[in-house]
Amino acid sequence: MDVVEQALSEDLGTGDVTRFAVPEDHKSSYYIEAQADGIVCGLGVAYHLLGWLEGADPDEFAEYKFVDSDPIQAGDVVFEGYYNTRLLLQAERTVLNFLMHLSGVATLTRKFVDAIRGTRAQITDTRKTLPGLRAFQKYAVRCGGGRNHRMSLSDGVLIKDNHIRAAGGIAEAIAAVRAEVSHTLKIEIECATVAQVDRALSAGADVILLDNMSIGELRDAVSIAKGRATLEASGGVTLENVREIAEAGVDYISVGAITHSAPSLPFHLEVR
Amino acid sequence: MDVVEQALSEDLGTGDVTRFAVPEDHKSSYYIEAQADGIVCGLGVAYHLLGWLEGADPDEFAEYKFVDSDPIQAGDVVFEGYYNTRLLLQAERTVLNFLMHLSGVATLTRKFVDAIRGTRAQITDTRKTLPGLRAFQKYAVRCGGGRNHRMSLSDGVLIKDNHIRAAGGIAEAIAAVRAEVSHTLKIEIECATVAQVDRALSAGADVILLDNMSIGELRDAVSIAKGRATLEASGGVTLENVREIAEAGVDYISVGAITHSAPSLPFHLEVR
Amino acid sequence: MDVVEQALSEDLGTGDVTRFAVPEDHKSSYYIEAQADGIVCGLGVAYHLLGWLEGADPDEFAEYKFVDSDPIQAGDVVFEGYYNTRLLLQAERTVLNFLMHLSGVATLTRKFVDAIRGTRAQITDTRKTLPGLRAFQKYAVRCGGGRNHRMSLSDGVLIKDNHIRAAGGIAEAIAAVRAEVSHTLKIEIECATVAQVDRALSAGADVILLDNMSIGELRDAVSIAKGRATLEASGGVTLENVREIAEAGVDYISVGAITHSAPSLPFHLEVR
Amino acid sequence: MDVVEQALSEDLGTGDVTRFAVPEDHKSSYYIEAQADGIVCGLGVAYHLLGWLEGADPDEFAEYKFVDSDPIQAGDVVFEGYYNTRLLLQAERTVLNFLMHLSGVATLTRKFVDAIRGTRAQITDTRKTLPGLRAFQKYAVRCGGGRNHRMSLSDGVLIKDNHIRAAGGIAEAIAAVRAEVSHTLKIEIECATVAQVDRALSAGADVILLDNMSIGELRDAVSIAKGRATLEASGGVTLENVREIAEAGVDYISVGAITHSAPSLPFHLEVR
Amino acid sequence: MDVVEQALSEDLGTGDVTRFAVPEDHKSSYYIEAQADGIVCGLGVAYHLLGWLEGADPDEFAEYKFVDSDPIQAGDVVFEGYYNTRLLLQAERTVLNFLMHLSGVATLTRKFVDAIRGTRAQITDTRKTLPGLRAFQKYAVRCGGGRNHRMSLSDGVLIKDNHIRAAGGIAEAIAAVRAEVSHTLKIEIECATVAQVDRALSAGADVILLDNMSIGELRDAVSIAKGRATLEASGGVTLENVREIAEAGVDYISVGAITHSAPSLPFHLEVR
Amino acid sequence: MDVVEQALSEDLGTGDVTRFAVPEDHKSSYYIEAQADGIVCGLGVAYHLLGWLEGADPDEFAEYKFVDSDPIQAGDVVFEGYYNTRLLLQAERTVLNFLMHLSGVATLTRKFVDAIRGTRAQITDTRKTLPGLRAFQKYAVRCGGGRNHRMSLSDGVLIKDNHIRAAGGIAEAIAAVRAEVSHTLKIEIECATVAQVDRALSAGADVILLDNMSIGELRDAVSIAKGRATLEASGGVTLENVREIAEAGVDYISVGAITHSAPSLPFHLEVR
Repeated sequence: MDVVEQALSEDLGTGDVTRFAVPEDHKSSYYIEAQADGIVCGLGVAYHLLGWLEGADPDEFAEYKFVDSDPIQAGDVVFEGYYNTRLLLQAERTVLNFLMHLSGVATLTRKFVDAIRGTRAQITDTRKTLPGLRAFQKYAVRCGGGRNHRMSLSDGVLIKDNHIRAAGGIAEAIAAVRAEVSHTLKIEIECATVAQVDRALSAGADVILLDNMSIGELRDAVSIAKGRATLEASGGVTLENVREIAEAGVDYISVGAITHSAPSLPFHLEVR
Repeated sequence: MDVVEQALSEDLGTGDVTRFAVPEDHKSSYYIEAQADGIVCGLGVAYHLLGWLEGADPDEFAEYKFVDSDPIQAGDVVFEGYYNTRLLLQAERTVLNFLMHLSGVATLTRKFVDAIRGTRAQITDTRKTLPGLRAFQKYAVRCGGGRNHRMSLSDGVLIKDNHIRAAGGIAEAIAAVRAEVSHTLKIEIECATVAQVDRALSAGADVILLDNMSIGELRDAVSIAKGRATLEASGGVTLENVREIAEAGVDYISVGAITHSAPSLPFHLEVR
Repeated sequence: MDVVEQALSEDLGTGDVTRFAVPEDHKSSYYIEAQADGIVCGLGVAYHLLGWLEGADPDEFAEYKFVDSDPIQAGDVVFEGYYNTRLLLQAERTVLNFLMHLSGVATLTRKFVDAIRGTRAQITDTRKTLPGLRAFQKYAVRCGGGRNHRMSLSDGVLIKDNHIRAAGGIAEAIAAVRAEVSHTLKIEIECATVAQVDRALSAGADVILLDNMSIGELRDAVSIAKGRATLEASGGVTLENVREIAEAGVDYISVGAITHSAPSLPFHLEVR
Repeated sequence: MDVVEQALSEDLGTGDVTRFAVPEDHKSSYYIEAQADGIVCGLGVAYHLLGWLEGADPDEFAEYKFVDSDPIQAGDVVFEGYYNTRLLLQAERTVLNFLMHLSGVATLTRKFVDAIRGTRAQITDTRKTLPGLRAFQKYAVRCGGGRNHRMSLSDGVLIKDNHIRAAGGIAEAIAAVRAEVSHTLKIEIECATVAQVDRALSAGADVILLDNMSIGELRDAVSIAKGRATLEASGGVTLENVREIAEAGVDYISVGAITHSAPSLPFHLEVR
Repeated sequence: MDVVEQALSEDLGTGDVTRFAVPEDHKSSYYIEAQADGIVCGLGVAYHLLGWLEGADPDEFAEYKFVDSDPIQAGDVVFEGYYNTRLLLQAERTVLNFLMHLSGVATLTRKFVDAIRGTRAQITDTRKTLPGLRAFQKYAVRCGGGRNHRMSLSDGVLIKDNHIRAAGGIAEAIAAVRAEVSHTLKIEIECATVAQVDRALSAGADVILLDNMSIGELRDAVSIAKGRATLEASGGVTLENVREIAEAGVDYISVGAITHSAPSLPFHLEVR
Repeated sequence: MDVVEQALSEDLGTGDVTRFAVPEDHKSSYYIEAQADGIVCGLGVAYHLLGWLEGADPDEFAEYKFVDSDPIQAGDVVFEGYYNTRLLLQAERTVLNFLMHLSGVATLTRKFVDAIRGTRAQITDTRKTLPGLRAFQKYAVRCGGGRNHRMSLSDGVLIKDNHIRAAGGIAEAIAAVRAEVSHTLKIEIECATVAQVDRALSAGADVILLDNMSIGELRDAVSIAKGRATLEASGGVTLENVREIAEAGVDYISVGAITHSAPSLPFHLEVR
């Protein structure tokens, strides 16, 4: 929860100058309400900042009304509590900034997941995340029903076009990596053409990323792979074209937009 | 640049396992290209990560082709260089994640700024920023032509409805804050009705935030304020309604969406 | 309380080598006693270091006998408790170093505040604080009855002579800053002559710092300002001349000495 | 230099809002001038903050005119340079805060050192330092001609009255410590009476702290010690009584005031 | 290199008290010499601490005479240079502590690697590393010719007996993990009997850890696996039995001792 | 316990991918069992990581069955508890890595201590510790019955051959250090010949390190010292020769191997 503490500190600066408007011991009953429909995500931040007060008054409380991953509707109260007013108003913006962003990510992910329901494919995220927020965003993707791709450069091999060029070819790149990395890791390689897919299969790739391929090419890739490698479609995926991509028979569809361009889901915090 | 270092580290994890595909001393000539029109922002991160190599080879370089705030078009090369390939591919994603997000913020800000051009109003941001990225996002807002509101709770007084309720009224809240805060700070207070604006003016508010008011109410607020206070419209601002709000005569219009919901502006990095 | 933890760690080094003189489970009843008259400040540090032991024995306690801001006399017991002796003696010096310094600041501040009682002026601090201790010292100033000036360069505009020289003049400096900073900040500018005060007023300065002016100049400045700007006297303020300055009619008098040259107020910790 | 970076950051907050008064590329020739006589200390901080700019313009420079420990007079220019004006004015306060405080400590130390010149005694500091500044203050003490006592609880044994009480006696305390600590450390013990000094000598103390003794008692302690232990006088030492204490024949006189109550030595930074 | 900085700081404490024996500007020509045969590892630490002095004198230098992974003999000079004597003697112990330990790890690893030369098996490390030193130790293992197993719990799945018990069986554990983890990771599972190996193969395990099996069991496991899974032998591996294990036909042999029990390889640093 | 937290984090990486095998709320009864005879050390780490769960279920517990310094035998259960299975398996490796290493250090130390029982000498450690683990290793040495030498360069003077060379001689080195260091520190100096010992005694050394001397030389050193200085033998000490060294009459014998080359003492954690 270091990222949460940093965000709180970023918002607090050298101290809240408006706090003087509120008596030091004033307490408030409050609730957090959704202002649009979607998937809720980030309630743990609310609990972390509003529910763990040291030496808390026994009257104080913080309570979940929904849990992360739940579908919610505008008007739903997702969290409520009773708390010191100064501390509440100092934590408010940080709580809402997490909740609105993470729920935005979960909600957009769910739309992609729903769009391919019934196919064999699964939605997965990418490393196109917002700086500092990767672990939170990837959690939100799971809450939206998506799968996680690698967390960082260290827990998955993905040989891209630039690697292949430097290595001197697909087979060379795969061999060079296999000779060094842990035997617990699969080797994924990016292919832009069906001919490259064929070469990657011969070189023993475990996973093949099909980069910006047409639906026809995707189908051809599926057809020549015959299950010998896991297939992941990537590039230019939208809510409009994702089902057609899924129906081409790939195993995974990775979508950058769910983490780099998810609009916020609005919530507000109100004192009763 | 700590946030940049953290983002790099977040992406690197315990080490890039795909690096073995590339010979350790391999170098590459590369460029970063825009894939859509907009305002560029975040090139300093590229320079920070790709241009400051300790003990660098004299052949290596990193060069800006545009500067932050410049309008760019799809196909424009915004940055180019020559660098160790392993290090380049390890920094690539972090560089692009900043560039795409910050350019997205600057680009959306510019759309709001353009929409009110010719009026007396100015676009300003809010504290509805993404956790950990406030300073970067606020810089992007300036690159897009917007103004910055306070950076944190410590550099601006903004008395909101929840403060007023706890203080016992508008005049009480203003008096309580004025008795304590530095004489270098103005006092801004949120009003939801024109009657409240009147009370805030009487209490000597320096700035009044007009919260979610109709165009008619905004005009009334402008009319009764007679320049005695700075007026800031806030709440529900969109590209569709922002001009009408500006024409009501307010001084500032604060827009949360430019920081919480700006879609990414796409760029890619290519090795020549 | 990070500064407190750092101070404790600075004093502990790699471990207290004298601890072996005391049996590991030995406990002591102790009290902290003032050795001079003044204003007490910093008792929270004592409580933080002596009262929050994890897994504490139910016999242990830590108790305030006074609260910060209280006037105290030599011989007053300000804090007492019962605690593990090794831990007590390891925290003792850090507790006393804070208490003696902060009480020193509060006590000197109170002397300045008392010296101008009955005038319209208020005592305020400066950025002439001891490195790393700004927040603590500014808190001590408030405990002594003073007001806080800005906490840092980010929460208050103060255009000084060197800025004016670089800007090309008073009006130019004010205009340049106003075009960029948040509308929640007032603009303060330093003037060394009454003629400059006149120019600053014309340029719309919100606050004017009257730098090292004679009593006569201060009176002239007050007279021409006619309430159009807040006036702050600064420079060479002593307990001898502060009342005369206040009686010249300024709003604030800023005093560096209360933070950079406050002598320590002595306390000692005794085991009963 | 972490403490310096923290102090700079403490002063900068979220960014200098007054910087807009100065054009971004403006440079200034400046000097730092003493405003009183004393011993200069802290010039390394000036050089650290003003002289190590990355990618500095070749015109820029930072130059010592004196070195730490030098005696200076009001009007002496101690440092000068040519630097980016915005960065200069952002570092100015931190540089001066260190310089004024550390020179204050060195200057007061020198007064004590001068007062006992010609005796066998030496002035030493204590652990009564300002939180976070111990290493800097102890360096200033050396610059003023004083000696350093232990830096922390880990590099010197000093058994005090509270330890003795818990241990059950002087001999018991010394034996308990000697059985555990490194053989590289001497054992110092605090005595309040000559009878205790006798007991400490019998128990083999290496150093004896003579706590708040009268001149007569100090002389008696010297007389019975006969060089078998190093003797340190401590408690209530002032510029008025320090020579008499020294002449009693002790080896060291420790003075808390040189670190906890040294008034600032004034300096200012001027742009030419 | 944070671990190196921390180690240096751990050794420096509040400052080197013996430095006063050496004049501040004294420089020395020095060399680091091996005192036993083995594989050298850790020279980068020497270069990091002795070769990157800011503002170094042009006479100073630091030079590798061997590179990491090289076999060396007692008496070989592996590094030499010319440096400030105080700084040299302050870095000496940290440099040697890394060099002696990492060379110890590399040397022991090489003995295991040599012992199985000619078989299909490879030596791999484990997570039985010394706290804080994992990345360094795993680098030393590679220098000794070993392969790295996963770096942490996040870059490799390894289902152990305790997981299987909690999951309710081998097939259940594998299915539960496969449903959640990234498709870039293989699934490894620990088996203690050949019957379990059979079940793991049916459940589609990618890698099977053969835990503390006899040579006979290892051969049976190899025989029933028929290349369908990668096989790793683990538990009780010594230099005496490692070849027999390798000849049983497994792919990897993991050895905890190379990181948890490698004796130091001695080196000393001498000033000429 | 920062080193423990860092080790846990080093092992956790971006999250345990195998955790999905175990239901989130599953709990286990477990014990930690010794697999060899020795001295146990490091149980506090087990308690720190397994016994301090915030908001723990009342069923959960963590219990010491032995305490650090106790002799144990293979098969002894040293710790047991009931805990959330996912958290248990995530902490397991870190707990065991500390326990195995520290018990290894304590066990080897005890062997040296036992070997010299009945002589006047004591075993002490050195600064030849594993990077980052000094405080933990030195604690383990004490648990094994050894004494600690200095913790760092700041809490003990030890003038070595390289210092003497730079200082220009033994007397010069001692005088230079004595003039500067705190009067709470003894001065230790390294001597390689009996002639040097003689010079060190004349120069008033408090402690003399006898470096790599033969038994005959050690005896001669003891004989000429006549108790005027503490004597420490160092260099090439093994379990075979340590008693003969002790019987030569030295006060301390410092042994690098107990911290740089102690083999691990095996333990495992089992779920019942």
